[in-house]
Amino acid sequence: MLAVHLENGVVSMREAPLPQRPAGFALLRLMVGGICNTDLELQRGYYGFAGTPGHEFVAEVVEAGTRSLVGRRVVGEINLACGQCDCCRQGLGRHCPRRTVLGIVGHPGAFAEYFTLPERNLHALPEGMPLDRAVFTEPLAAACEILDQVAIPRHEPVAVLGDGKLGLLIALVLDAHGYPVHQFGRHPEKLRIAAAAGVATELAGAKLPTAAYNWVVDATGSADGLRSAASMARPRGTVILKSTVHGAVAVDTAPIIVREITLVGSRCGRFEAALPLLEHALIPVEEMIAARYPLREAAHAFAHAAQPGVLKVLLEG
Amino acid sequence: MLAVHLENGVVSMREAPLPQRPAGFALLRLMVGGICNTDLELQRGYYGFAGTPGHEFVAEVVEAGTRSLVGRRVVGEINLACGQCDCCRQGLGRHCPRRTVLGIVGHPGAFAEYFTLPERNLHALPEGMPLDRAVFTEPLAAACEILDQVAIPRHEPVAVLGDGKLGLLIALVLDAHGYPVHQFGRHPEKLRIAAAAGVATELAGAKLPTAAYNWVVDATGSADGLRSAASMARPRGTVILKSTVHGAVAVDTAPIIVREITLVGSRCGRFEAALPLLEHALIPVEEMIAARYPLREAAHAFAHAAQPGVLKVLLEG
Repeated sequence: MLAVHLENGVVSMREAPLPQRPAGFALLRLMVGGICNTDLELQRGYYGFAGTPGHEFVAEVVEAGTRSLVGRRVVGEINLACGQCDCCRQGLGRHCPRRTVLGIVGHPGAFAEYFTLPERNLHALPEGMPLDRAVFTEPLAAACEILDQVAIPRHEPVAVLGDGKLGLLIALVLDAHGYPVHQFGRHPEKLRIAAAAGVATELAGAKLPTAAYNWVVDATGSADGLRSAASMARPRGTVILKSTVHGAVAVDTAPIIVREITLVGSRCGRFEAALPLLEHALIPVEEMIAARYPLREAAHAFAHAAQPGVLKVLLEG
Repeated sequence: MLAVHLENGVVSMREAPLPQRPAGFALLRLMVGGICNTDLELQRGYYGFAGTPGHEFVAEVVEAGTRSLVGRRVVGEINLACGQCDCCRQGLGRHCPRRTVLGIVGHPGAFAEYFTLPERNLHALPEGMPLDRAVFTEPLAAACEILDQVAIPRHEPVAVLGDGKLGLLIALVLDAHGYPVHQFGRHPEKLRIAAAAGVATELAGAKLPTAAYNWVVDATGSADGLRSAASMARPRGTVILKSTVHGAVAVDTAPIIVREITLVGSRCGRFEAALPLLEHALIPVEEMIAARYPLREAAHAFAHAAQPGVLKVLLEG
């Protein structure tokens, strides 16, 4: 079968053997995959990754122990948890210390004709859910994770910093849940997607409001984001950290302590929170699709996705 | 009157006029003051401070609009809030953006024969409360602040990093509230005070436990503290930041985000939370007294307080 191979920053295609399907796993055939910023970071050399990337996908179940799954279209949770440890027993397999992660850590990813995942990671899609929408389940779940972690009071304004893919999904999710969202970004064409859904958007110049919000989300992906977000928060306010910035960031903790700001690290989320939003078409994710490529043109697709200002690039199986 | 003067790192005594008492203020006579790490930081040049320091005190009310206050022994909240703004209306005068702060920002401090504070900042002491105990109200309130900010479930172990004055008070407060406390420090003689009260103490060597606690308090006062505390926290755990470290600290935010750690900045607290603990002698604060000096020997007192490993140094009016 054909599989994307990523090593030393180079995306290439390889012929690979069909993956073995261990007990409890399903063999999956890629229908559509989404290139995530994490994939681009793997290409830039973070985590010393070498192998098949890809963790946003819709696939068809080719083989599975559970007969009713075969032939179904599925999306899948990306953390392969041990199921035994404290984290797993608390329903937090996403934090299992022994986990592998699809296309990121220790488990070959979805950018291949075929790949495997534990059956318990899979969610069968409702009939008629468009592939182009379903492929956003994983990043949308990451946006929904915020509301799993913190209880934002009804009607509280939330500031979202950043208008990349994740920033847009976060703004749209919060808006869909009824929060007044103020999104600050640098790209008019991206902010337009959020604005069309009812989000109040603003082109962020040099001057951001200070001490103005009880709830701020940093989705800038930049080291400056945390500093800006903290200064936008009111005393006793909360900043949700959605930007994985690699390496040490110089943070002045004094104002965070003096103003008693709470910082909440936030990562992957439950698919159960994202799927109903997609099923009821509450989030216009399709408008974030910038381009689509066949799987064998993954190198071009990665290059396209890495261009500044480009939103979601899809790979079609 | 005699007043301590701090400028360019030098502590000296000055003759100063008796302070004016504006409407709503009380004129106070110092009985005993406590030297805090913040005072030592002012001496080291942070905040560009020049003037009379001192914010931990017990005083006698000499003059006040409220006749019943005159002659009473009082402690006092250190933030002089405007009383009008959003923060003040929410009962968070400690975060009033227009506040001055006794002996720290814009209001002469308590290390003088006489000083002033708004009457609404004062708490009259119960009859018979020893001065040596009451002088710990302000730092004890800062320790209590943690339980005002976060709801730690009953019986949850809490790790406290650091065995300085604030670290000890935090461990003792959490212990008094029934939490199993594990305190990690570097000074056997300080840890002994917490251990005698029932806190499990450990001399922190190179190796601290990792991913071991849902609740961790950093009271080390060092840039390393935040890193250590974050690595001790379990996924989805909470780290309370009690160490004001000056200047930017290099923080690797990636593990904080990946492990979804919550960081809570924490500063001053309500005196109402601290006073009952002192009244019922639930916290052995007197054991933290290292030395006492008359006010006029403030320079010696500051020098003593700045020596490594020294706990609370008192100034007697």
